[in-house]
Amino acid sequence: MSNAATAKLKVAIFGASGYSGAELYRVLRAHPRAEVTALGADSSAGVPLNALYPALGPEGSPKLEKLDPAGLKGRADFAFLCLPHVQSMDVAAPLIAAGLKVVDLSGDFRLKDASAYAKYYSHVHSQEALLAEAVYGLPELHSAEIKKARLVANPGCFTTTSILALAPLLQRLKVRPGSIVIDAKTGVSGGGRKLTQSFQFVEVYDNFSAYGVGGTHRHIPEIEQELGGQRVTFTPHLLPLSRGIFSTCYAELEPSADEEELLALYRDFYKAAPFVRVYPQGELPTLRAVRGTNFCDLGIKVDARTGRVIAVSCTDNLGKGAAFQAIQNMNLMCGFGEAEGLGLSALTT
Amino acid sequence: MSNAATAKLKVAIFGASGYSGAELYRVLRAHPRAEVTALGADSSAGVPLNALYPALGPEGSPKLEKLDPAGLKGRADFAFLCLPHVQSMDVAAPLIAAGLKVVDLSGDFRLKDASAYAKYYSHVHSQEALLAEAVYGLPELHSAEIKKARLVANPGCFTTTSILALAPLLQRLKVRPGSIVIDAKTGVSGGGRKLTQSFQFVEVYDNFSAYGVGGTHRHIPEIEQELGGQRVTFTPHLLPLSRGIFSTCYAELEPSADEEELLALYRDFYKAAPFVRVYPQGELPTLRAVRGTNFCDLGIKVDARTGRVIAVSCTDNLGKGAAFQAIQNMNLMCGFGEAEGLGLSALTT
Amino acid sequence: MSNAATAKLKVAIFGASGYSGAELYRVLRAHPRAEVTALGADSSAGVPLNALYPALGPEGSPKLEKLDPAGLKGRADFAFLCLPHVQSMDVAAPLIAAGLKVVDLSGDFRLKDASAYAKYYSHVHSQEALLAEAVYGLPELHSAEIKKARLVANPGCFTTTSILALAPLLQRLKVRPGSIVIDAKTGVSGGGRKLTQSFQFVEVYDNFSAYGVGGTHRHIPEIEQELGGQRVTFTPHLLPLSRGIFSTCYAELEPSADEEELLALYRDFYKAAPFVRVYPQGELPTLRAVRGTNFCDLGIKVDARTGRVIAVSCTDNLGKGAAFQAIQNMNLMCGFGEAEGLGLSALTT
Amino acid sequence: MSNAATAKLKVAIFGASGYSGAELYRVLRAHPRAEVTALGADSSAGVPLNALYPALGPEGSPKLEKLDPAGLKGRADFAFLCLPHVQSMDVAAPLIAAGLKVVDLSGDFRLKDASAYAKYYSHVHSQEALLAEAVYGLPELHSAEIKKARLVANPGCFTTTSILALAPLLQRLKVRPGSIVIDAKTGVSGGGRKLTQSFQFVEVYDNFSAYGVGGTHRHIPEIEQELGGQRVTFTPHLLPLSRGIFSTCYAELEPSADEEELLALYRDFYKAAPFVRVYPQGELPTLRAVRGTNFCDLGIKVDARTGRVIAVSCTDNLGKGAAFQAIQNMNLMCGFGEAEGLGLSALTT
Repeated sequence: MSNAATAKLKVAIFGASGYSGAELYRVLRAHPRAEVTALGADSSAGVPLNALYPALGPEGSPKLEKLDPAGLKGRADFAFLCLPHVQSMDVAAPLIAAGLKVVDLSGDFRLKDASAYAKYYSHVHSQEALLAEAVYGLPELHSAEIKKARLVANPGCFTTTSILALAPLLQRLKVRPGSIVIDAKTGVSGGGRKLTQSFQFVEVYDNFSAYGVGGTHRHIPEIEQELGGQRVTFTPHLLPLSRGIFSTCYAELEPSADEEELLALYRDFYKAAPFVRVYPQGELPTLRAVRGTNFCDLGIKVDARTGRVIAVSCTDNLGKGAAFQAIQNMNLMCGFGEAEGLGLSALTT
Repeated sequence: MSNAATAKLKVAIFGASGYSGAELYRVLRAHPRAEVTALGADSSAGVPLNALYPALGPEGSPKLEKLDPAGLKGRADFAFLCLPHVQSMDVAAPLIAAGLKVVDLSGDFRLKDASAYAKYYSHVHSQEALLAEAVYGLPELHSAEIKKARLVANPGCFTTTSILALAPLLQRLKVRPGSIVIDAKTGVSGGGRKLTQSFQFVEVYDNFSAYGVGGTHRHIPEIEQELGGQRVTFTPHLLPLSRGIFSTCYAELEPSADEEELLALYRDFYKAAPFVRVYPQGELPTLRAVRGTNFCDLGIKVDARTGRVIAVSCTDNLGKGAAFQAIQNMNLMCGFGEAEGLGLSALTT
Repeated sequence: MSNAATAKLKVAIFGASGYSGAELYRVLRAHPRAEVTALGADSSAGVPLNALYPALGPEGSPKLEKLDPAGLKGRADFAFLCLPHVQSMDVAAPLIAAGLKVVDLSGDFRLKDASAYAKYYSHVHSQEALLAEAVYGLPELHSAEIKKARLVANPGCFTTTSILALAPLLQRLKVRPGSIVIDAKTGVSGGGRKLTQSFQFVEVYDNFSAYGVGGTHRHIPEIEQELGGQRVTFTPHLLPLSRGIFSTCYAELEPSADEEELLALYRDFYKAAPFVRVYPQGELPTLRAVRGTNFCDLGIKVDARTGRVIAVSCTDNLGKGAAFQAIQNMNLMCGFGEAEGLGLSALTT
Repeated sequence: MSNAATAKLKVAIFGASGYSGAELYRVLRAHPRAEVTALGADSSAGVPLNALYPALGPEGSPKLEKLDPAGLKGRADFAFLCLPHVQSMDVAAPLIAAGLKVVDLSGDFRLKDASAYAKYYSHVHSQEALLAEAVYGLPELHSAEIKKARLVANPGCFTTTSILALAPLLQRLKVRPGSIVIDAKTGVSGGGRKLTQSFQFVEVYDNFSAYGVGGTHRHIPEIEQELGGQRVTFTPHLLPLSRGIFSTCYAELEPSADEEELLALYRDFYKAAPFVRVYPQGELPTLRAVRGTNFCDLGIKVDARTGRVIAVSCTDNLGKGAAFQAIQNMNLMCGFGEAEGLGLSALTT
C-alpha cells in the first residue's frame, strides 16, 4: 500500500477525451502510487471530463486542457499518449527530451521496421531514433526491457489478444508456416470515440460484419513482428457490444500435439504472468470474464480430425487491450508492483 | 398469383410451437398456393399459437393440437416436421405412407451414411429405407432431385450458410485438402425455444462465446458430405442477437486465383439461384441484409499475402437456414414457382 | 390487385437518404398501385440508395439526386417529404403549385396554431395559407379530410402512439384536467440518421436515459392539439434498440370506469381502423409485435387502488410512426385501399 | 485498511447461486473487514461457484454446499440470505437464535404489517416476533436503527430506487395525495437466475414490455410503507439489458416549488449519504453511471406547464438494489465504515 511519506507519481494523459484516456483517468484515480495531474485534449479544452463521461459521476471532475508537452516538467513525471498516430510521435519527442517517461498508446512506436509505416500507415516516420529505442510493451514477452525503458509502445488491442494466444506455440513448438488464421471479433469501443457513421447505434445494433478482410489491417505487421515473422491471415469483425475482443486462432503444428501437453506448455509459459489466465481442459473463456479487467483469458482445444490447434483468447479492448495494460507498463517502468491499481474484477452478470 | 379455381395445398406443421414452426406458419399464412390446416405440438396442445408468439398479433390464431400422423389424410397434403431428431424420423414414416409429401427440418434424413448417426447423434437410424430415398434439400445444389422427392431433408442453418459459401470452389477449382476453416457465428434462436440456462438473457447479453470447438458439432458431417468429403475445421460461436448466421470461410486454392475470377465463377455458379446474392468486388454482406429473408448473401476476398480465399456468407438461421428454405423446397416439390410466398425484404434499419 | 391497364402512381421521395425515406422506398417498391420515380437527397446526390442501406440488397438500387420541386411535373404525381422542418415547408409550396399531392413527414404543417412554431420550433412559419389547408394525417381521427386533401401533415412518432392511446378516453369520457402523464420510450432510429455523438453505439448501448424532461419536446403541442387542448406531462426516454415506441399513458377519469367498459369503448372507437389492435383484457402489447408493421397496438388496464387508467401503446416509429402511416395517407388521398401495400407482419422472434 | 491483528468477520451467504449471492461473494472477496466462509445452495451443492459464474475467473472458487443454519456457529458470525421468500424467514430464525447477525434480501421481513403478506405474498407469516424486530435496511432513512439491529430486511430494487427519489418530497413538503406515479424500468437480472421462458434471450432481446400493470407488484406495499402510506401508481417495465433500474417518478406538490429549491432540499436531505448523488440542475442520471456501483443517482425537474415534479432515479438492481446495499447494511451493523469495500466505480463506456 501507498506510504504517505512517498510522493505519488505525477501523471499527464494526452488525448484524455477518448475512450482509453477516460479509462486511464478512472483507474489512476484509485491507484496507490500515481495521481493524474493533467488531462490533455485540444478540441474539448475547458470541458470537465465527466461532461463527456457521465459515468465518472456528477462530482468534481478535472477539466481538459490544451497541453504543451515542453512545458509539463514539474507538473508531470510520466505521460500516457492516447493520440492519433503521427500526432503522437511528435508529442512523445519533447516529453522524452524533458525527462518524462512515456507510454504511447498509438501505433507510432510499435513497428521495428520504420519502412512498414509507409505501407500500413501511409506516412514516413519522423522520429526514427526514438522508434529504435522504444520497447514493445507486452509485459508477458518483454518485461525486462520495459522495466528499463523511457518510451514504451503499448500494443494494439487485436494484437495483444492474438499474440498472447499464439506466442507459446511459436516460441516452443514448430508451427507450419502459413497455417495461422486469426478470426477476431471486437466490440465497438475499439473504433474510438470519433464520430463515425458506421458506429452510429442504428448501424451496429442487431448486426454483425467483417471489415479489413484480406490483409489490410494495421495490426497485422505488429502481430507478425511479435510472432517471429510468420505471415498470418487476420480477419476482424464488429460485434454489437461495447467492450471486448475475442480471437479464435487456428494453427497447424509439426508434429501435432495433444491438449494436455499444450495446456501444460501454456501454463508454464505464463507462470509468472499475473494477467494471463489459462483455462482448464474443456473450458473456454468468454468476453464476460474479462470485461473491465486487465486479464487475457486463454482456452486451448485440438481438433483431432484435422490436427489444428484452436486457441481462444479474450480481452477487454480498453483494458488489457489499451488503458489497463498501459498502467501495467507504467508500474513496471516505475518499479511499482506489476499489478498495483489493477485488481479489477468483472461483474458476475 | 393464385388461381381462385385451384385449391390451395393443405399443409400441416409438426412442432409448430418452436421457432421454425412459428415462422413457417407466419409466412404460409400469406402464401398464394398453400394454407396451414393443422398445427401440431404435444406439450402446448390446446394453446393458440399467438399465446406463445405475441408478434403474430392479438387476433384469432389457430390452436396447437396433438396430431396423429396416420390420421392426417384428407386434412393435409404436405407436412413440415420441426421436431427433435429421432422423434422426427418416426413421424415421417407414417406420413409418407399416407401419401403426404414431407420436408423434415431435423437432422434425421440429412446424412447419407447411416452409420454417422451413431457417431454424431448417438442413436441407430430406424428408417434406413426412407433415409436412402430422402433428398438433401439445398435447392442451389439439388433442385432436380428435390422436384421429384417425396421426402426432403432440410439442411441445417450452419450447413446451408457454409456449403453455399464453399461449393463453387470445391466443384470448380482445386482446394488444398485440409485447408478449410469455417469460423461461424450464430444468433441465439439457432438454439431453439427449449428452456435452457445458457440461453437466458443474462447469460448471453453483452457476451460472446465459442462452443463445440474441436470438431464435435453435428453440422460437420453434413457440411463434409456436401463438400465432397473434404475434412473441415468448424467452430461455432454465439452472438448476442436473435437471428442470423455469419460464416467466415477460409480455403487455400491450388493454384491460387484472383478476386475477379472468383467472383465471376460464383456469379456463374449461382446464376439460376434466386436466393443467393453475390456481392460486387470490395463489398461484403452483413447480417442486417438477410434478416427476415430467404437470402444467402456472399462476399469473396483474396488475401494476396497468404493466398487464402475468404468467403463471407450470411443467412437468417430461421429463414434460409430453416423455415423459408423449407418453403422453397415445398415450392419445388409441388411445382410452384421457386420464390412464391418468399418475396420477403429485410428492414432497412 | 393492380390492374395492368392502370398506370401506377408516380412517387417522388425528398430526403430519401434518411431512415423514413429509405423505408418508404423499400415498401413502395412492392406497392401494387405506386412506383418510386425519383429519390431526392442533396448531400448524397449521385450515390445509389443501397450504398447507404445495404439491407436493400446488392442489386440495382436507384441513385439519389438533387431534385428541383418545380421541375418534377410529369415525373411524379405525388411526393413524400422527409426533410428537416423549415426546409420542408419551402419544398411543399412549389410541389402543391405544380399539382402534386404531398405528404410531409416533418413538423411543418402539423400545428394549427402558427404561433406555436415560434415557441417550439424557433421560427416564423412562411407558408401560413398551406398550413391552414393542411390536414393532420392521423387516419383513425381524420380519414374524411385526408381523402380530400392535397397536403397532409404526417404525425410525429410519439404523437401517433400517444394520441391513439388516449383519444377514446378524451372524446367519449371525462378525463380529469391535468391528470394525463405520458411516459414514452423510443428506439434510437427516432432520432434520425444525422451523425450525432449521443447516438453513437457506445453511448446508447447497455444504457437508458430520459431527455427533454419537463415539457420542452416538440411533440407536446401536437399531442395537446389532438387531445382537445388538455395539458399533458410528457417524458421521452431512449431505449437501447433501433425501432419502436412504447408509451405508458396515465389518466384519471371522472367518474372512473372499469376495464371491461373501457375495452368495449376502445374496440368500438377503432372498429373501422385496420391498423389499431386492441388487446383482450389482461393482455398488453410489446414492441416486438409491431416491429416492421403499420400497427398501433393498445392494451388497457385500470389500477383499482388509485383509480387511474393505464393505456399502453406500441408502434414502430418508422412504421405507423412515420413511413408506413405516410403510405396509409397516400392510399387514402389517392383512392386506393387504405391497407394496400401495408400487409406487413412482424417477425415472430 | 484492515488491521492484521483484527480477525475478519466470518460471513455465510445462503442462496449463493443466485445473482445477488454471486455479487455478494465477488465484492466480499475484496472487503477489508470481512471474508466469506460458507456458500450455501441446495440444488447446486458440490459445484464451485465459478462453474455458474465464469466471470469469477477460472481459478479456485469455493464450492457451494447445503448449509444447516443451526450448525453455522463458529463458522460464521454474519449471514446474508438470498433465498426465496417464505424459505428465507425459516432460515433467519435459527441463525438469529444461534447469535448471528442477518441481512435478509428477500421480502420476508420488509413489511411491518404482517397481514400484508397474505395479500401480496399469498402466505401467512410464520415469524411475527422477528418481523416486529426487523429493521428496514435503507441506510439513508434508517441508519440509526440499522446500527443496532440483529436482523435487517434489505429493501427491494424497485423500492430503493423509488423511495430515495420521493422521500425528500414526502418528508419535507406536501404532496397532493394520490398524485404519485412511478414508471419504472428494470434490467433482466432483477428477475433472478431461475430458468424462465419469458427471460430467455430471444424473448427479451429487441423488445420492451410492461408487466404487473395495475397495482399488483409486491414492491408496492413496501414503497407505500416508507412513503408514509400514500397510495402510488407503480408500473414496472422490462428493459433489454442485464442490470439497472430507472424510475421516472411524478408527483404534484401543494404548493408547487421550483427546481432550485427542490435541488437544495434534496442535497440537504442526502448530505450525509455517501451513496446518493444529486445531479446539478439541468442534468439527469443514466443507467451507465451506476452500473456495478452502490450509487443511487437522482435528477430533479419541474414541468412548469403542468406543475409536476419529475424525479429520475437510477440504481444497479444488483448493487444498491440488492447485494451492495446489503454490504452497506453489514458495515453499519458491524461498526465498519459505511462505505468499506464499496468503492466501486462504473466503467466509463
